[in-house]
Amino acid sequence: MVLRLSTLFLRTLREDPADAEVASHRLLLRAGYIRRAAPGIYSWLPVGLKVLAKVENIIREEMDSIGAQEVHFPALLPKEPYEATNRWTEYGDGIFRLKDRKDADYLLAPTHEEMFTLLVKDLYNSYKDLPLNLYQIQTKYRDEARPRAGLLRGREFIMKDSYSFDIDDEGLDRSYQLHRAAYLRIFERLGLEVIPVAATAGAMGGSKSEEFLHPTEIGEDTFVVSDGGYAANVEAVSTVVPDDIDYSDAPGAEVRDTPDTPTIETLVAHANAALPREDREWTAADTLKNVVLAAVLPTGERELVVIGVPGDRNVDLKRIEANIGAHLSVGGEVTVEAATDEDLKKHPGLVKGYIGPGLSLDAAVLGSKGSTGLTYLVDPRIVSGTVWATGANVRGKHVFGLVASRDFCWDGVIESVEVKEGDPAPDGSGSLRTQRGIEMGHIFQLGRKYAEALHLKVLDQNGKLTTVTMGSYGVGVTRAVAALVESNRDEKGIVWPRNVSPADVHLVATGKGEEVFAAAEQLAKELDAHGIGVMYDDRPKVSPGVKFGDAELIGIPTIVVVGRGLAEGVVEVKDRASGTSENVVVAEVVDHLRALISG
Amino acid sequence: MVLRLSTLFLRTLREDPADAEVASHRLLLRAGYIRRAAPGIYSWLPVGLKVLAKVENIIREEMDSIGAQEVHFPALLPKEPYEATNRWTEYGDGIFRLKDRKDADYLLAPTHEEMFTLLVKDLYNSYKDLPLNLYQIQTKYRDEARPRAGLLRGREFIMKDSYSFDIDDEGLDRSYQLHRAAYLRIFERLGLEVIPVAATAGAMGGSKSEEFLHPTEIGEDTFVVSDGGYAANVEAVSTVVPDDIDYSDAPGAEVRDTPDTPTIETLVAHANAALPREDREWTAADTLKNVVLAAVLPTGERELVVIGVPGDRNVDLKRIEANIGAHLSVGGEVTVEAATDEDLKKHPGLVKGYIGPGLSLDAAVLGSKGSTGLTYLVDPRIVSGTVWATGANVRGKHVFGLVASRDFCWDGVIESVEVKEGDPAPDGSGSLRTQRGIEMGHIFQLGRKYAEALHLKVLDQNGKLTTVTMGSYGVGVTRAVAALVESNRDEKGIVWPRNVSPADVHLVATGKGEEVFAAAEQLAKELDAHGIGVMYDDRPKVSPGVKFGDAELIGIPTIVVVGRGLAEGVVEVKDRASGTSENVVVAEVVDHLRALISG
Repeated sequence: MVLRLSTLFLRTLREDPADAEVASHRLLLRAGYIRRAAPGIYSWLPVGLKVLAKVENIIREEMDSIGAQEVHFPALLPKEPYEATNRWTEYGDGIFRLKDRKDADYLLAPTHEEMFTLLVKDLYNSYKDLPLNLYQIQTKYRDEARPRAGLLRGREFIMKDSYSFDIDDEGLDRSYQLHRAAYLRIFERLGLEVIPVAATAGAMGGSKSEEFLHPTEIGEDTFVVSDGGYAANVEAVSTVVPDDIDYSDAPGAEVRDTPDTPTIETLVAHANAALPREDREWTAADTLKNVVLAAVLPTGERELVVIGVPGDRNVDLKRIEANIGAHLSVGGEVTVEAATDEDLKKHPGLVKGYIGPGLSLDAAVLGSKGSTGLTYLVDPRIVSGTVWATGANVRGKHVFGLVASRDFCWDGVIESVEVKEGDPAPDGSGSLRTQRGIEMGHIFQLGRKYAEALHLKVLDQNGKLTTVTMGSYGVGVTRAVAALVESNRDEKGIVWPRNVSPADVHLVATGKGEEVFAAAEQLAKELDAHGIGVMYDDRPKVSPGVKFGDAELIGIPTIVVVGRGLAEGVVEVKDRASGTSENVVVAEVVDHLRALISG
Repeated sequence: MVLRLSTLFLRTLREDPADAEVASHRLLLRAGYIRRAAPGIYSWLPVGLKVLAKVENIIREEMDSIGAQEVHFPALLPKEPYEATNRWTEYGDGIFRLKDRKDADYLLAPTHEEMFTLLVKDLYNSYKDLPLNLYQIQTKYRDEARPRAGLLRGREFIMKDSYSFDIDDEGLDRSYQLHRAAYLRIFERLGLEVIPVAATAGAMGGSKSEEFLHPTEIGEDTFVVSDGGYAANVEAVSTVVPDDIDYSDAPGAEVRDTPDTPTIETLVAHANAALPREDREWTAADTLKNVVLAAVLPTGERELVVIGVPGDRNVDLKRIEANIGAHLSVGGEVTVEAATDEDLKKHPGLVKGYIGPGLSLDAAVLGSKGSTGLTYLVDPRIVSGTVWATGANVRGKHVFGLVASRDFCWDGVIESVEVKEGDPAPDGSGSLRTQRGIEMGHIFQLGRKYAEALHLKVLDQNGKLTTVTMGSYGVGVTRAVAALVESNRDEKGIVWPRNVSPADVHLVATGKGEEVFAAAEQLAKELDAHGIGVMYDDRPKVSPGVKFGDAELIGIPTIVVVGRGLAEGVVEVKDRASGTSENVVVAEVVDHLRALISG
């Protein structure tokens, strides 16, 4: 069916919409693909829906090709399954909850692990039924605190989510690798560059996990790569841990007056002035910085923790959030923020600017009031025998020559500081570079967490009930449309990759002559008859300039102009991406375009 | 792609599920098409999803054929547009409402008039842009009081909804007729019998409206037809109103003691005994029955009304609900129920069993306490000059010879009693027969209600801002799947119409010989290569009886059996509907089936 601009429900905007922050959002609005219905919630106009359908079909074909079977779950779900896995609580404010007229609790599902697990439990009961891979392309909901960047972080969005069910770890690994390969093919066919990076499991639970990140400056995720091929989300990078140091000969620690030195900078300056060393100057790396953070639990409670890191490193809240779960009293999604003055007031032992590792500090030596009673975690670089200058838990006093393990200990080790350009890759493959990206897909080896919580067991080869092991896999469908625009555009508008363009050819009739419109009409029909998707700008009273501008904004990869050249028997075939054009004889244009498009 | 039963995510159930009330619900569960996720909320399994996709595609093709353009709106919507049209209140408990983390109000949309109106307002501004027809195939939500009958009345369901936008009434009528014709083609192609019947607009507002009802005993809607072609939902049937009667010679009304006659039956018996007439006996048709009802408003308030109807007729609450809106103080969806004793207590003037038309009754004549202060409505048969026996608003007293208009009057006339077999059709086309049906589609001429509330105006031919006129049109997609099963089944299972069957051929390999499976496998691949949809029962250890039972339950229209006949070079081709079968030579079976399927 020819898309005629005279009747197509599409209006382009000349101006950038005020509230659009990123290029994809601006362009999808301006070119008439989407409209905003509420914060983070969008309507799809006819051309937008065509792009969405093409993206969905590529995903569907690749899922089918690995033997995954398509199903469809409701978006509105009862609380009970999510209570069984504790996610009803763990999601905190991040999901939409509601009650029906009988006061029963429901949620708008952000992801469907529980329901898939229950469905398989309902239908299957033997190892012979496995492996099983199921998927759906479905509308999901998350009540994001800050919906932003148009389709990149919405509150109602489409995902392809799939789930694998296997009898053993080898099976899970096979299902995982099948999905991994399918995902790489999907992004390849979409024309979307992605880098698979090691990731943490977060609230999903489970063990192995990788994200497919599309590299872009506006991405919310930071990841690192090495020349040797290492790639990881910063949350997942593990620090190269130094060896322990023998401290048997280390001099004793000493508390010194250090008035007006509440920062690492002033402390280093004081040390260089008052305690000059021969071999080298004092630097921030010689100091131990103790940072008080508040972990906000899913229940809304605040739990304070103190984290000790080398003074030359900044804490990275996201890395801490990804790793702190094991150290807290409850599970679920935890956010971490700087402790407020109000938080600190509740713990008078915490002397701002002079906080030390209070836990096992010898109060006599340090003149300190001793432990604060808070959990104390340290960066992996704080190994046994390392020597530090740090706060003495008394205003205007620091302690020097404090030896880890000898003079203080800790409750746990946590990845907690920013990964820096030049840090070594954990696998020895060189030094790390940081990049930003958008998460386009995520694959998880969930293991048995959900199957155990919901009692999904099947009979194994020996007739024994065995808990099934699962994987879960997601691709952001609406997000993919936005990411494609981010990476396929120029100052004039969108430049769609051919596989996802709303049409193959944007046909423009210019001029006022009836013969021009007659020839263009004829060409549109012929192309359509050959299965070539045509958007035809048949608007009679619109200037060529406006038509060209719209064509460039809308972004169909090939623009065909029927106009002045018609008198010489040619039409102009223009490449949207490069801007180059050539004249093609009218009689040959259909074959020319067919070759171009299939090519 | 061949659907292999050895790996297909489908398990048939031998027993009827306990909670399934109707045949379609039982069969769709038993044959593995759907599973229940919550009351009125269902998951779609692979074969179910295939049927759903076929139904959607037929609808999509017919919508495209009338020039309607597909868009897609969110399901989660902000309150504001629904407040502007007052539907936020009017829907009462019938919709799902929720709040986001910022405490803003949202709803899960039951239908999208407001959003389409706003979108057109955003994009269009001239009569030249019209007519416009937009549609979506989308998930909708209604918080039904009693979700029932599986997919027939769900709380999350798929609808195709479309909306037309025109500059004038003629345009609206054209758009309406286009949709009407497209709907008839859709149901024709689906193989679903429907009868278009006149309907009331209900909470949607607007004027002309028709429902497409699928006739079936289990339908929730009652409609009437006449031999002359009249068809209407009972809510929409208008009574043939008798002419007024000259009452100048009518004798005066008389109050009589009628002890222990609180029912129509006892009143008639009393009259025949105490006031025998020469020409005919007293019957219920001589009495005026005054029924006290409580209208439950969208706000939850109860407003009492009294309705006077001939004593031989029963009130029909649904007909009253459809028509009472105009007589009440507020709009929106109103439910009507019998007044409770508690309701009656608040109005001591209402003497149960002896209620009369109190409003303008002459208290002196009747010995009554006079008006109750409640709205009094009457059935259209109560015309001026008709004579009645009715309650005197005093225990143990009735009044006889009461003349309408002379002795009592009313606040309004309302269609309020059951339509009976044999009642005359309002268009004079004969007498009415009642039938039950399921509402499969509904078309409305909305007019300017939504465009006015949301200020959708465009410039007309004279450059003047004119309010657009709209239509709205819906087809129940998931409901169509259920209705198709209701009308296409036998005692063994489903019998799909070919157009919506999950596959064209159900291929069964029976026996243990390797050559049987090899031949069936070969045939499955050939059919698949010819674009024929094949479900192949390749399960190696399942008995022929179970395989045949499953094939009949699943309901694919053609069953092909590769088994014993193979030795003689034939396979069995069986028609699921008739049960007849024929042997076809192996070499010819592909051509045979192609002819059968395209035929």
